[in-house]
Amino acid sequence: MSKDNTENTNSQPQPDWLERVAWNEQGLVPAITQSVDTQRVLTLAWMNRESLAATIESGLATYWSRSRGKLWRKGESSGNLQRVAEVCLDCDNDALLLRVEQVGGVACHTGRESCFFQVYDNGRWVTRDPVIVDPKDMYGLHE
Amino acid sequence: MSKDNTENTNSQPQPDWLERVAWNEQGLVPAITQSVDTQRVLTLAWMNRESLAATIESGLATYWSRSRGKLWRKGESSGNLQRVAEVCLDCDNDALLLRVEQVGGVACHTGRESCFFQVYDNGRWVTRDPVIVDPKDMYGLHE
Repeated sequence: MSKDNTENTNSQPQPDWLERVAWNEQGLVPAITQSVDTQRVLTLAWMNRESLAATIESGLATYWSRSRGKLWRKGESSGNLQRVAEVCLDCDNDALLLRVEQVGGVACHTGRESCFFQVYDNGRWVTRDPVIVDPKDMYGLHE
Repeated sequence: MSKDNTENTNSQPQPDWLERVAWNEQGLVPAITQSVDTQRVLTLAWMNRESLAATIESGLATYWSRSRGKLWRKGESSGNLQRVAEVCLDCDNDALLLRVEQVGGVACHTGRESCFFQVYDNGRWVTRDPVIVDPKDMYGLHE
């Protein structure tokens, strides 16, 4: 089936919208998540068909945990859910961008807003960004 | 060697900074690129050790092209270079975030600012975002 976007010019649903995504050999694609409030890039996680469908249906970011081999609704243990404002697909169809409202303002299990808190500086990775919530006070250190 | 961040509290270079990154079995990690000017997420590409080192050394985003099996300085054919403001590593050390100044304001080979121009809407992927530069006018349609 064609992967081009010519059908986007009409308003009919695309029955194959889930198969438009160029899932890799493991059936996964990387999913970037960005805050619509602060514009910070929060996380890089992975999705399979089931997690993308669950995300669309529920409106809550739901990833595939490669380490645990199961669906993982972000915030299911910490309460820090991600309410999805929009889901974007890139030009190669092999990466997703979720723009979300981050409940609690904390996406990282370390209690920081973003997981990207180590910054390269002259041969070092320097930790920055305040810890907003003590990880001990979140439900589950590692979701 | 320990992967923890306790050494970040002093200011010595980390001789193993490149090995702090949790390269996957192919020696790669995903690299998200975000505009420091507009905060748009521009691209998701891949890096290996050589491309990260080249990025740090040159100050210009340099990826690993999985399809062509070689280093790829973003914009080398189109002129749309990415000047790197900072390189961030996530909490698991397995994803990078480059914050860049996007020369020409166009990151996508389609002539749009961002590669993430397809948005899910009620069972469809809808194309949005203006084409800023005609791809025919860029050097090389696919970098």
